[in-house]
Amino acid sequence: MFRNPGFCKLGTALIASGMAASLSLAAGEGSMTLGDNGRPSFSIDMSYPYDYSSIVPYEGQHSAIYQHIDENLGAHIGNLQRWLRQPSISAQSVGIDDMANLLVDDFRDMGFQEVERVPTDGHPGVWAYYDAGAPKTLMVYMMYDVQPVNPEDWQSPPFDAAMVDHPAGKAIMARGATNQKGPQRAFLNALESIIAVEGTLPVNLMITAEGEEELGSPHYPQIIDKYEDRLRTADGVIFPMNMQSPSGDINLFLGVKGIAYWELEARGGKWGGPVTSEIHGSYKAALDSPVWRLVQALALLTTPDGNTANVPGFYEGIRPPTEEEQSLIAASLQGANRMSAVKDAFGIERWMDDADPEQLVMEMTYTPTLNIDGIYAGYTGEGMKTILPHKATAKMDSRLPVGIDPDEHLAKIRAFLDANGYADILLRKLSGYPAAQTSVDTALVQAALGVTRKYAGTPSVNPRIAGSAPFYQFTERLKLPMMPWGLGYGNGAHAPNEIMLIEPAEGTDAAGLAEIEKAYVDFIYALSAD
Amino acid sequence: MFRNPGFCKLGTALIASGMAASLSLAAGEGSMTLGDNGRPSFSIDMSYPYDYSSIVPYEGQHSAIYQHIDENLGAHIGNLQRWLRQPSISAQSVGIDDMANLLVDDFRDMGFQEVERVPTDGHPGVWAYYDAGAPKTLMVYMMYDVQPVNPEDWQSPPFDAAMVDHPAGKAIMARGATNQKGPQRAFLNALESIIAVEGTLPVNLMITAEGEEELGSPHYPQIIDKYEDRLRTADGVIFPMNMQSPSGDINLFLGVKGIAYWELEARGGKWGGPVTSEIHGSYKAALDSPVWRLVQALALLTTPDGNTANVPGFYEGIRPPTEEEQSLIAASLQGANRMSAVKDAFGIERWMDDADPEQLVMEMTYTPTLNIDGIYAGYTGEGMKTILPHKATAKMDSRLPVGIDPDEHLAKIRAFLDANGYADILLRKLSGYPAAQTSVDTALVQAALGVTRKYAGTPSVNPRIAGSAPFYQFTERLKLPMMPWGLGYGNGAHAPNEIMLIEPAEGTDAAGLAEIEKAYVDFIYALSAD
Repeated sequence: MFRNPGFCKLGTALIASGMAASLSLAAGEGSMTLGDNGRPSFSIDMSYPYDYSSIVPYEGQHSAIYQHIDENLGAHIGNLQRWLRQPSISAQSVGIDDMANLLVDDFRDMGFQEVERVPTDGHPGVWAYYDAGAPKTLMVYMMYDVQPVNPEDWQSPPFDAAMVDHPAGKAIMARGATNQKGPQRAFLNALESIIAVEGTLPVNLMITAEGEEELGSPHYPQIIDKYEDRLRTADGVIFPMNMQSPSGDINLFLGVKGIAYWELEARGGKWGGPVTSEIHGSYKAALDSPVWRLVQALALLTTPDGNTANVPGFYEGIRPPTEEEQSLIAASLQGANRMSAVKDAFGIERWMDDADPEQLVMEMTYTPTLNIDGIYAGYTGEGMKTILPHKATAKMDSRLPVGIDPDEHLAKIRAFLDANGYADILLRKLSGYPAAQTSVDTALVQAALGVTRKYAGTPSVNPRIAGSAPFYQFTERLKLPMMPWGLGYGNGAHAPNEIMLIEPAEGTDAAGLAEIEKAYVDFIYALSAD
Repeated sequence: MFRNPGFCKLGTALIASGMAASLSLAAGEGSMTLGDNGRPSFSIDMSYPYDYSSIVPYEGQHSAIYQHIDENLGAHIGNLQRWLRQPSISAQSVGIDDMANLLVDDFRDMGFQEVERVPTDGHPGVWAYYDAGAPKTLMVYMMYDVQPVNPEDWQSPPFDAAMVDHPAGKAIMARGATNQKGPQRAFLNALESIIAVEGTLPVNLMITAEGEEELGSPHYPQIIDKYEDRLRTADGVIFPMNMQSPSGDINLFLGVKGIAYWELEARGGKWGGPVTSEIHGSYKAALDSPVWRLVQALALLTTPDGNTANVPGFYEGIRPPTEEEQSLIAASLQGANRMSAVKDAFGIERWMDDADPEQLVMEMTYTPTLNIDGIYAGYTGEGMKTILPHKATAKMDSRLPVGIDPDEHLAKIRAFLDANGYADILLRKLSGYPAAQTSVDTALVQAALGVTRKYAGTPSVNPRIAGSAPFYQFTERLKLPMMPWGLGYGNGAHAPNEIMLIEPAEGTDAAGLAEIEKAYVDFIYALSAD
């Protein structure tokens, strides 16, 4: 049931069809046009903003459990540090096995009746089932892997998990602090306190953890495979996450973009260039260069500003904004300017095209991107080395809105390279999955919104974030509502000096670890009562 | 005196002027036109090839010294290995001090009267003077540094200096084996044998060694500064080098191109992009990318094939072929196709523009290059990391023919970037020096040619190679004739698996270590007798 009284029906006709090849759809509210920048632009109806203030704050009180959390906070922090001090860099196969064992041991200690390592063709998954004999079942998605690190860029070593002073308060600094070990272990802390006080949980739990989220979850489907029938019986899926800004504002989202991640590699060969190894740089006078070849091929892919793809069909197939999405976006734009906080946090001087908040939200939600995550060739160290390299590689990704299939997307890029004489350039797919979307009108989301209102005032809910996660496994495959949720503040995911706030400073309204855990307790009870 | 009887005067007028901005000089022999590829093309008069067979082979015999070399060959090989096992990577400041000390100790042991470490603003130089009371003085240029290594690419560890089986025979494999420790230490072995047998040398020696050749010799002028007046009294400069192919052919050269080496760095800033650190890759939807910025700026620099620079004035100022150069090139093109050996050695499938030998020689000798030695941004490891990098860097070099000044060259590139809206892209000069040229009509070169004919048949002499070295210090500053010279075969300079041939296999006609040293003995006597 759709609970928002302000959101009934938009007064205008919506464009429901896929994007036409000509990108020349009719103008009007909710419609799509081609912007001056060459990217599609969807206008939305701003007159039916979703009214979050109508959601009743969660009213349950679980004082004995709250007290248990407060009394055991030191041990709970220790649990986070224990997880964070165990490196688990999936891209480099560092510490994966030990981290999977840590999860297994913790689930067993907590009394989960079933705990299994789940072999996959990649890093292993972990399955855990807690049978509370309850009518409702919550599925929990976890990832136990983290991004790689450049230790020299960190103020405190990335696997020390030291408590550091942050402007927002005392925080744990570590790779994985907020993405995603910190909030996940906080969620388990909350479960431990419920079980300690009540003897069991008010809902059954099914946990599926994977060790390859940062690789694009290539084998997570194999974990789902094994438990698919049982997972389909769950009532919804949560992914524990720190979702507050330091000021306590909370921006929720009900979906993620998909992703395609690939490498382009130019190598010397029949077309020219050194073939088997680098060669002395002076031979550039007589030889083609694979680096120039990659650079010239890459340059063809975008407009001169690097922001619009030249690949035919790149922007086709985007599913235009639904009524619900328009309502959510209209409401979110009435609230605090979330992008402004990002701008401050990262010291950014200028948004792309000097876009205004509405444009930014629309680009983040609906536009497929074309990003170079990394590029390398030849000598990349200090000083000089004079060589003509024999290969050059770019690591690239596209974040894909609802409607764009990753394999079709890559096929368009491949075809464009071929059509421009770059058939020799290798396109190596590393990952790809589609977007995922959950409706605000589900018990899961409404439970989270009620608890959010209790602790953090009125939330802002975006239909989707610009980032990616393999949530299509839940929404598209298992047909379950799914949402990342939780209080607290973190920063530095995929970057140096990643932190999770533990003890807020004076003037910081984001939740500390104790309040994060209490909110998870409330959420579980809210869901059980629904 | 110009000794080649076949080379008197070219029948046609030569273009002596610098290149006109329009690149539309008169057609005709020795003249310059603009090729279809957009690069200047000089035609040369092929009717007066230099006649090397007219040079009388060196006739001196120094049997006692030759015998000393043969009897001490094991120790001589040990000397090479001792140098090669001492890493001295200038770009990474690895082993520099220890290597400089090795030189100092060796010169002292050999009886040089003056041996000094020469402090510079970079790595130290080494000066050594051997006063033989002789009328002639030979200056020896040495470099004791080597290129960086990727040990995982090597068949034998780069600082083991192991004797390996190579198709051409037994060879020492090590970084620096042929570039340049091997031939330099072989030259010193020859001196040791002369001194051991004769008690002294037939010429005085001035040695200036630097530890920054692979960095572009930024501080070598400071070493020259200290001894300039004395160095000007020398009769010529030799740079010991392995100059034979496995088949024994010897290709000499009397000059080098200059070089400019620089980095281009795009960073986020006022124009857009992340500023202080990388940011989650999903923000590409809202932010410009410094990597795309660098890629697009680089792409503007060249034609789509990456082989012709679009920078205005890039090809202006090249000094056209002189009479002597035309004669040398005409002769070299009558001999074995040197580029064909390079093609085989490196497994190259296609030359740039499918150029013929004459075009290749002309490009290598007269065309300024635009090469990307390295490029890097963001994540360059295995697997995936999804980031939007805040900076991107390209390492670039141009090899400069006679007539092009490195600083003026860089100014043109800077101006081109500025004119195209890329004033924010940093251009960081790492090195720059002009070309150098010695005439075939000098006692130094004629002595080397005579000895070459004794051991290696008829040489081919190119006016210049496409590579660079700071030889302008000798030719332009000290006004001395200078040439790299020596027998022997090496391979893999600036690449993995660098070797110097020590003991030729059956069917290999290149000199082994003993013959290399005997030829240096002859050269020193030939020079002393001139």
